[in-house]
Amino acid sequence: MSSAPESKAVVLLSGGLDSATALAVAIAEGYDCYAISFDYGQRHRIELSSASRVAKTLGAIEHRVITVGLSSFGGSALTGQIDVPKHADVSEVVADIPVTYVPARNTVFLSLALAWAEVLGSTRIFIGVNALDYSGYPDCRPEYIAAFEAMANLATRAGVEGSRRLEIVAPLIAMSKAEIIRLGIELGVDYSITHSCYDPSFDGKPCLHCDSCLLRIRGFEEAGLRDPLLDS
Amino acid sequence: MSSAPESKAVVLLSGGLDSATALAVAIAEGYDCYAISFDYGQRHRIELSSASRVAKTLGAIEHRVITVGLSSFGGSALTGQIDVPKHADVSEVVADIPVTYVPARNTVFLSLALAWAEVLGSTRIFIGVNALDYSGYPDCRPEYIAAFEAMANLATRAGVEGSRRLEIVAPLIAMSKAEIIRLGIELGVDYSITHSCYDPSFDGKPCLHCDSCLLRIRGFEEAGLRDPLLDS
Repeated sequence: MSSAPESKAVVLLSGGLDSATALAVAIAEGYDCYAISFDYGQRHRIELSSASRVAKTLGAIEHRVITVGLSSFGGSALTGQIDVPKHADVSEVVADIPVTYVPARNTVFLSLALAWAEVLGSTRIFIGVNALDYSGYPDCRPEYIAAFEAMANLATRAGVEGSRRLEIVAPLIAMSKAEIIRLGIELGVDYSITHSCYDPSFDGKPCLHCDSCLLRIRGFEEAGLRDPLLDS
Repeated sequence: MSSAPESKAVVLLSGGLDSATALAVAIAEGYDCYAISFDYGQRHRIELSSASRVAKTLGAIEHRVITVGLSSFGGSALTGQIDVPKHADVSEVVADIPVTYVPARNTVFLSLALAWAEVLGSTRIFIGVNALDYSGYPDCRPEYIAAFEAMANLATRAGVEGSRRLEIVAPLIAMSKAEIIRLGIELGVDYSITHSCYDPSFDGKPCLHCDSCLLRIRGFEEAGLRDPLLDS
């Protein structure tokens, strides 16, 4: 069962709350979705099994996990020997570039998504970046996404042949976490199978004190809901 | 022994003629060079041992081989089941996008080089792309390199902090193969340890009939030299 190229979208899927919602948006817009995740030596590799469950539950056509040796460079608490910072509450999460920033991560992930999109003949790549809660990450800003899109249109066959314009779609970029959660629930996302924690226990339980856990919990509170992971 | 960030360059090194010359240029310009190669499931993986020899011989500070699952997408004769095209002579090598084009390859490689550059604090990435002999590859054109550089400056800490501008340096982009070879010989490159063939025999001998072999042989001829690999 193969679909027309113009109906195909490649969707970056980490298994977290944002990317699960981005996948649900792409599916709601009628795209046949090809979900892509990355095994890059992240300490929270458990997110890959969440990604697999999310892809299946939401109805992606295919889900691929691509290995990429990003951790061998170090430079981040998510891949190296630096500890993931923990806080008493969300007020301590600051907007500077945090030590959990992985150098050039979104650029590497979008590049690999671009490679798959080119092979599939797809001209849409969805990414669940968010510029509000992650204002400290350079590669979550709208101007970065626009620059990647411009580059991608020169990098590929489609760009040379001028036949079809490739778009990087970041549907959540200007939304608050509470807005993302409300949208996802409307679209049928089951957040109990997503995974956001940067530093989970060996059996996958969230730490509840890293930046990602605290922003997620506050998002559910602001949406007037309770994070299902708190009861897992 | 660590050097100042402004003196560090990351150099993409495939083990071929062009990238060996690009490394020699970066070293001649006084950079401490960090060479990076990729194990991406290429059928000519033997180029990685050439890359290692070239890095050592020319005096790179460090050489890393990064694994990246680019071949799992297929779409290229270099990574998939498609045969590498063979020709009687170089006149048959055409300028269209060839089947040896690997989708988004330079974008993926430059992205990973960017990640390492950011960790090293380096603001120079050298790439041995050439727009003349590889006019069919979209990601070898000057406008592509400029767009990647613009994106990279928004993708990274340095871009956000506005402290240092990252440059993608493509010293060979406007040169003919003969000019590249003459430059390399002037800079002391030993081309007998480089490897260019897309489809080598099991013991690493070049096929002499793929696009890459034919362009290389013609380059040596036009430079008034004989390719040392013809006698290997």
